[in-house]
Amino acid sequence: MPNKSDFAMNLSTPHVYRLSIACPDKVGIVGKVSSFIALYGGNITEANHHLDQDAGWFFMRTEIEAASMPFDVEQFRTAFEPIAREFSMQWSISDSAQKKRIVLLVSHEAHCLHDLLYRWKAGELDGDIVGIVANHQVLGEMAGWYNIPFFYIPISKDNKAEAFAAYEAQIDALNADVIVLARFMQIMPPSLCERYLGRMINIHHSFLPSFIGAKPYHQAFKRGVKLIGATCHYVTQDLDEGPIIEQDVIRVTHRHSIEDLQRLGRDVERNVLARGLIYHLEDRVMIHGHKTVVLLEG
Amino acid sequence: MPNKSDFAMNLSTPHVYRLSIACPDKVGIVGKVSSFIALYGGNITEANHHLDQDAGWFFMRTEIEAASMPFDVEQFRTAFEPIAREFSMQWSISDSAQKKRIVLLVSHEAHCLHDLLYRWKAGELDGDIVGIVANHQVLGEMAGWYNIPFFYIPISKDNKAEAFAAYEAQIDALNADVIVLARFMQIMPPSLCERYLGRMINIHHSFLPSFIGAKPYHQAFKRGVKLIGATCHYVTQDLDEGPIIEQDVIRVTHRHSIEDLQRLGRDVERNVLARGLIYHLEDRVMIHGHKTVVLLEG
Amino acid sequence: MPNKSDFAMNLSTPHVYRLSIACPDKVGIVGKVSSFIALYGGNITEANHHLDQDAGWFFMRTEIEAASMPFDVEQFRTAFEPIAREFSMQWSISDSAQKKRIVLLVSHEAHCLHDLLYRWKAGELDGDIVGIVANHQVLGEMAGWYNIPFFYIPISKDNKAEAFAAYEAQIDALNADVIVLARFMQIMPPSLCERYLGRMINIHHSFLPSFIGAKPYHQAFKRGVKLIGATCHYVTQDLDEGPIIEQDVIRVTHRHSIEDLQRLGRDVERNVLARGLIYHLEDRVMIHGHKTVVLLEG
Amino acid sequence: MPNKSDFAMNLSTPHVYRLSIACPDKVGIVGKVSSFIALYGGNITEANHHLDQDAGWFFMRTEIEAASMPFDVEQFRTAFEPIAREFSMQWSISDSAQKKRIVLLVSHEAHCLHDLLYRWKAGELDGDIVGIVANHQVLGEMAGWYNIPFFYIPISKDNKAEAFAAYEAQIDALNADVIVLARFMQIMPPSLCERYLGRMINIHHSFLPSFIGAKPYHQAFKRGVKLIGATCHYVTQDLDEGPIIEQDVIRVTHRHSIEDLQRLGRDVERNVLARGLIYHLEDRVMIHGHKTVVLLEG
Repeated sequence: MPNKSDFAMNLSTPHVYRLSIACPDKVGIVGKVSSFIALYGGNITEANHHLDQDAGWFFMRTEIEAASMPFDVEQFRTAFEPIAREFSMQWSISDSAQKKRIVLLVSHEAHCLHDLLYRWKAGELDGDIVGIVANHQVLGEMAGWYNIPFFYIPISKDNKAEAFAAYEAQIDALNADVIVLARFMQIMPPSLCERYLGRMINIHHSFLPSFIGAKPYHQAFKRGVKLIGATCHYVTQDLDEGPIIEQDVIRVTHRHSIEDLQRLGRDVERNVLARGLIYHLEDRVMIHGHKTVVLLEG
Repeated sequence: MPNKSDFAMNLSTPHVYRLSIACPDKVGIVGKVSSFIALYGGNITEANHHLDQDAGWFFMRTEIEAASMPFDVEQFRTAFEPIAREFSMQWSISDSAQKKRIVLLVSHEAHCLHDLLYRWKAGELDGDIVGIVANHQVLGEMAGWYNIPFFYIPISKDNKAEAFAAYEAQIDALNADVIVLARFMQIMPPSLCERYLGRMINIHHSFLPSFIGAKPYHQAFKRGVKLIGATCHYVTQDLDEGPIIEQDVIRVTHRHSIEDLQRLGRDVERNVLARGLIYHLEDRVMIHGHKTVVLLEG
Repeated sequence: MPNKSDFAMNLSTPHVYRLSIACPDKVGIVGKVSSFIALYGGNITEANHHLDQDAGWFFMRTEIEAASMPFDVEQFRTAFEPIAREFSMQWSISDSAQKKRIVLLVSHEAHCLHDLLYRWKAGELDGDIVGIVANHQVLGEMAGWYNIPFFYIPISKDNKAEAFAAYEAQIDALNADVIVLARFMQIMPPSLCERYLGRMINIHHSFLPSFIGAKPYHQAFKRGVKLIGATCHYVTQDLDEGPIIEQDVIRVTHRHSIEDLQRLGRDVERNVLARGLIYHLEDRVMIHGHKTVVLLEG
Repeated sequence: MPNKSDFAMNLSTPHVYRLSIACPDKVGIVGKVSSFIALYGGNITEANHHLDQDAGWFFMRTEIEAASMPFDVEQFRTAFEPIAREFSMQWSISDSAQKKRIVLLVSHEAHCLHDLLYRWKAGELDGDIVGIVANHQVLGEMAGWYNIPFFYIPISKDNKAEAFAAYEAQIDALNADVIVLARFMQIMPPSLCERYLGRMINIHHSFLPSFIGAKPYHQAFKRGVKLIGATCHYVTQDLDEGPIIEQDVIRVTHRHSIEDLQRLGRDVERNVLARGLIYHLEDRVMIHGHKTVVLLEG
């Protein structure tokens, strides 16, 4: 197992509070929130707004230097609650010092796991990988090398209900904040989709909505597309229809066999999943209906 | 009207014959063809092969300096025919000095026409734009400025059969080799799809097979994709299902309205159409079933 | 000349004030500014912040719906001045209804002019092209077609001082807010660089700082790079060293001749110049030392 | 240590001979070579030509199914030699069954090593990683996990000559065909540059020729570029001036700190190095003066 320091790039992430707000648009929201922060001497280190004019809905994400505020997160909640009520806000506040607990679900394909583990060690993921649950044993050694608990729960046609109950129990036992399907390649039962709504993330190996369902690279090959892609999205009960967080593509030609598409696609999948997960971990993604608002620094 | 010389970049395209071959794979094809060319002292300036191993099908495109051969195109055909028969080739030979005659079909959106006319003047298109046929009058002045004959043939719900007959007559009168639907936005009748099979090119404003049919940018907006695209393809009777020649995409975010998608998409559409058309004009595209083989210089 | 309506996409740009601020970082800036806007009932439609932690410098761009404020721009200035003083702000306020006056300087290459004129007609540029000044006559007809005044002022080795004095006089007569060197390919005299500092924009046909100076495509060809690019930057007295607004690249191979690089590069140049100019017109670019802060919607 | 089969994607690479030719251009080269191959019943599976018209130099790479020829590599050489002489060819023939022996030189940064080891295990590299030589110990465990011999040879200001002699001895002992500087970050002595000319590959963390030398991300940050890149090139005695094999870039903004550039750049570096190495391993790269001809399937 490598020491974390061997990989880490000394990314000094400042200690901040992240305030996320979504509410019906109304004059004065920004002013009110900013005044609240200024009143307590808060130092805003990043701010993003988005006004969806068609929907009349307003989105706002603010990072505030924690040390500049006289509050912990709980006290922040109490003090801010009246303002939130006034504007009918859906809102949350998170503390960057409270790392999200990540559980990875994997099968037998290594590329996404391999990449996420590296990025985690290198300090790119603002969260802690606390466990890996797999329906094949093959990736256990890789998990072991990174000292991550690995749980092997096989799934067969006949044991699906029990198996997924065991997955759920394990995810609970690990106290997961985020569940990542890192090429898990199993259709999640509706109950789990519902239960982990907004915090279960999948990587689909096509540029959705093209090639929904099984064997997307085979479908892409058959159609003769000139670009293949990958899509990171929240899991919902509608297969491959969840809100999209991130997508990307790579160029291919008639020369590429299905195996070539799979090989090239792996590079896209791992990058798209990593970016989508990072956005989620940093509380940059708000779900609005079937779509996402991803508040990056522009 | 600008002088051609005002725009042109002195692109000196050499005079070549372009030999295109598709046939069942068999040992010795390349050797036989190369020997034939060498026998007559031909100088090969570009060569591309593609072996589709699944289909057992072989594709080959060879450019030969015309001056190095003792043949004109007709004599070339006669001399090569026995070899073609031996290998059951689907084949063609074209002379780069015989520019293809291009007819553009447009409606009222200017961006693709504006771009193609510029590229033509700049010497980027290996062909001659001999006429523009439109169902709206608005782009007539632009055509006029470039001294291209412009034919206005309106289409309404009630006159479709007659209108398309008039389009066909006009295309015939112009003696078109290639018909380009440069955002023509009309569904072509099956008879014309059939008649111009393999030489009628469309630009669809989505990354196919996503968002087939009407209003693809509205569909993309609704789905919340993070990239939008455009597809250049041959027109077949199955709407938006023809063999794809070229595609590309551009990144978008939740910030972009449908109007923004349309605006950003225009830049992709014009580039994708231009590239697809250029490949066709240079005889680089071979249709194989529902797919294309595009033999570029790698 | 086309009617504007022929091209325009009905881009309904809302009437806003754009408040740009740069100042030493200090707690409470955002709160103070937001409170000011809220106090007068202003509706913030877009907000961007950037904190340069190394430099201890803060940047802020806010769009406010004009109709929501009880001020015109002049009154806004008066009311805001005390706050600006308190934080030692470098600041400006602009009214989106006051379109910037754009003067294009061109030589004989058409591609950037052709593209900008189209985008202007299509409503993509938030400004008015009020004149074109050229040292060759060849693009005059294109200007004429768009009904833009065209001024031909030749430059030779012997008349440089007089010629540039005439350019300056013409730019002044046109009352230019922005001067765009759309492949003007002349080195501007220091006095003009100084006078138009921060509002004269150039497109350089390389990915700076690679291939500074003359014939960058020849240099790129010689070095054998696998990507070529273009750079949009503010003009300063140091040739090709001004603050960079935007850059992009395109892939090339050993197959491409210098002419090919020029042809492919044109597509990059026109897009990069258009994007850089649009950012400037929308007051999104702040110059800070030798660099820019470009406050896009992320 | 993972079993190779755990990662591998069943990439069945066919057994081929790869014939590479560079020579002065002359009529009949392709015909002669093809006739030679056809004479012995050889089945060409891939063919690429490139004619450098300025230099009057012709490049050709042909893959021939090994089983279709009656020769082993040595016999091929003997039979082909007279043709090679006739056209003054610089040429080589390689057997895809003879995997190239790869030695990686690393320092303490993990990302390139981590990526290459994964790709090797996944069957993407057409070669064998036979050893890793490092001037820091930290990556030894990673090497160990993949069962690759790891040699720690520290380098200090005072021991450079001896240290590099030890590197040379170790590389020789490993019988290396290719030496990859996977972020080795040491300037190689001229004697080694000379000795391993054309088979020592470096990844430089900038888009060359921008930001030659030390700390390119610091230089990029200071200049305010909007894209950062990486360059894979052959090592020559002129630092960062060797023939470029592959390059790529990624978009950045004013928001990104130097640490951010380093983090984002790592993704580009690992991909560019992998692609460049793969091209070399498959004998796709020919060096011609200060440039490369990379004969990919187009």
